[in-house]
Amino acid sequence: MERYVKGVGMTKFGIEDRPIHDMAHEAMTLALKDAGITAADIDAVVVSNVDTKINDERQRMYGLAVSSLLNRQMPIIVVPAVCGGGGAAFWTALRLKYNNILVLGVDRVLANTTPMITKEIMNAGDNFWEQEEGLAFPAINALVAQQHMLKYGTTVEDLNLIAYKNHYHGSLNPKARFFGKKVSLEEIKKSPIVASPFNLYDCSISVNGAAACVISNDKTDVKVEGSGLATDYLAPFEREDMTIWNATVVAGKEAFKQAKVLPSDINVAELHDAFTIVELIAYEDLGFCKKGEGGKFIRSGYVNLDGKMPVNTSGGLKARGHPISPTGVSQIVEIVDQLKGRCGKRQVKDAKLGLTHNIGGAGGTITVHIFRKL
Amino acid sequence: MERYVKGVGMTKFGIEDRPIHDMAHEAMTLALKDAGITAADIDAVVVSNVDTKINDERQRMYGLAVSSLLNRQMPIIVVPAVCGGGGAAFWTALRLKYNNILVLGVDRVLANTTPMITKEIMNAGDNFWEQEEGLAFPAINALVAQQHMLKYGTTVEDLNLIAYKNHYHGSLNPKARFFGKKVSLEEIKKSPIVASPFNLYDCSISVNGAAACVISNDKTDVKVEGSGLATDYLAPFEREDMTIWNATVVAGKEAFKQAKVLPSDINVAELHDAFTIVELIAYEDLGFCKKGEGGKFIRSGYVNLDGKMPVNTSGGLKARGHPISPTGVSQIVEIVDQLKGRCGKRQVKDAKLGLTHNIGGAGGTITVHIFRKL
Repeated sequence: MERYVKGVGMTKFGIEDRPIHDMAHEAMTLALKDAGITAADIDAVVVSNVDTKINDERQRMYGLAVSSLLNRQMPIIVVPAVCGGGGAAFWTALRLKYNNILVLGVDRVLANTTPMITKEIMNAGDNFWEQEEGLAFPAINALVAQQHMLKYGTTVEDLNLIAYKNHYHGSLNPKARFFGKKVSLEEIKKSPIVASPFNLYDCSISVNGAAACVISNDKTDVKVEGSGLATDYLAPFEREDMTIWNATVVAGKEAFKQAKVLPSDINVAELHDAFTIVELIAYEDLGFCKKGEGGKFIRSGYVNLDGKMPVNTSGGLKARGHPISPTGVSQIVEIVDQLKGRCGKRQVKDAKLGLTHNIGGAGGTITVHIFRKL
Repeated sequence: MERYVKGVGMTKFGIEDRPIHDMAHEAMTLALKDAGITAADIDAVVVSNVDTKINDERQRMYGLAVSSLLNRQMPIIVVPAVCGGGGAAFWTALRLKYNNILVLGVDRVLANTTPMITKEIMNAGDNFWEQEEGLAFPAINALVAQQHMLKYGTTVEDLNLIAYKNHYHGSLNPKARFFGKKVSLEEIKKSPIVASPFNLYDCSISVNGAAACVISNDKTDVKVEGSGLATDYLAPFEREDMTIWNATVVAGKEAFKQAKVLPSDINVAELHDAFTIVELIAYEDLGFCKKGEGGKFIRSGYVNLDGKMPVNTSGGLKARGHPISPTGVSQIVEIVDQLKGRCGKRQVKDAKLGLTHNIGGAGGTITVHIFRKL
């Protein structure tokens, strides 16, 4: 089944506290407009949304809210995977036999306080072995970073470069949380420690937002060429080597195989930078560089805006912002916009082949998608 | 793609407060054993699970917990739809191109108090128009019952008969919450009012539990012949006629069309009796009787254990119990057990064609599946 992206749309990601319905409606309306269709043309919907508490909206069954918002009855399912929900919903939608499928990611996070968000996100970690030990997500990922530094000599400076790059990219993206905000390497280095070796700038930023796209069987100029989903054990400590996120390896291989391309063919990528180390490990696990050489790779400039394959031109979770379920869909919005040449100051020249990489949990549920400009 | 059920399994549904992992592991182990395979033979998993708070387990990403429990890395997605999650997960799994797919429904509800469960389930109603007005689920469904009584002359006695039938069936099912418990019509009539016209026995019972099944491309003696999913607007008041649950009509028509059978061909059915009126309306919306004649239909004895098409031989949500996400999967367990002649005292003679009907929200997300004994 050949699949194409017909249209994409997203709200600005930011700290404005908007009702969830407003954000969902805006993203869907923009995606439908971009696709040149109306709600009446949609055959099915796959929604990604984190339940209730994290949203502080007391609105389970968000799929049905979409039915009410679009004033349409149709097949709708909800596929959450916490921070990886957008990608998992897109992966599922690709496999459903309907013509025009709307994929929506929406969450309202910022009605909560930071300690509450941290606690709620921690629920995506293992209840008994991680939560009870106080391992919030920055701490889990900091352990991974420490292992990587120990094993491969990766440095804090390497991680700083990733934060610096993504903030620079985000400063050029009007939809990004930190649009227009310049961040220097000095500021990054001097920011307060969160969980060693991470300081503030190693961690992504919680925002409100929504993102949507329309998948279709109708041929358009953006084709979905590869789609892989893989999972891993819930907690990193259960894995043989915490510095390899195997679900990225498996999902990536599947996507590259389907697309019949190599990592070196990719022109632009959105990688899941929940923490700087996560982007660095993804370079390795997706095969853009060898295992252990992520530090060298970021230093080479390959992933900078003027490099061979710019990564996170949107600003990534780091600077565009990370609204949980919408994140994976917003990556697709960015890649489609890049392939269509609609990215203004952050446009990658002649981008033909783009990749998205979205993670739920600490390497637990991972999707990789490859898109080609026809 | 022809799909078969290879094996089914479930825990006893009851009030014992067990860790969610225990229940999930037991149901999966029983289903794998019934299928004659091991975890190594599973190619993908679709889990249905209600997030965090309702479980009081603080365990999001339940799909990954399954990965850890089975000690396997593979594609896993989570498809919740509150009370309709089990059916929605099964519907989604049927559409994924893997050979052996494990479908698991699991929730731990009873760590909470009744007021908390009521409040959490209420989150599946419309936040603004229903929750804010104090419309808990019994109240929403009571409004539907009142409309049906007003329009079609349905009586409290008709509803009592449904409760009486399902409690009788449940008393014969060792996996049911009310196994061995006889309930008289007199007790049902005299029980306290919950939300007029409902009294206690019109409402289903919260339980803990898990249920699982294995779908396969390999031919077995139980074939999935029809599979429909439809949704409706979030709140019943948004619909033209509250006494018609259109998603049942649409999902049912789709399932009957695929199976190439008529409602009158069905030998045994599990219908979603969250409240007695919901089962009664399903008789009508699925075409087992005409709209408005549900009362006459229950009085005819057609759906009794010795009738032409026994309904809810498991005891239904009413007497087997309703653990949220596992419910839809447990309906499939019952139908498969009936088709295989494994139901002991509640066995329906010569059952060849069985149907399941599962609802999330007040008629919001509905799946209908039809199974044939080969």
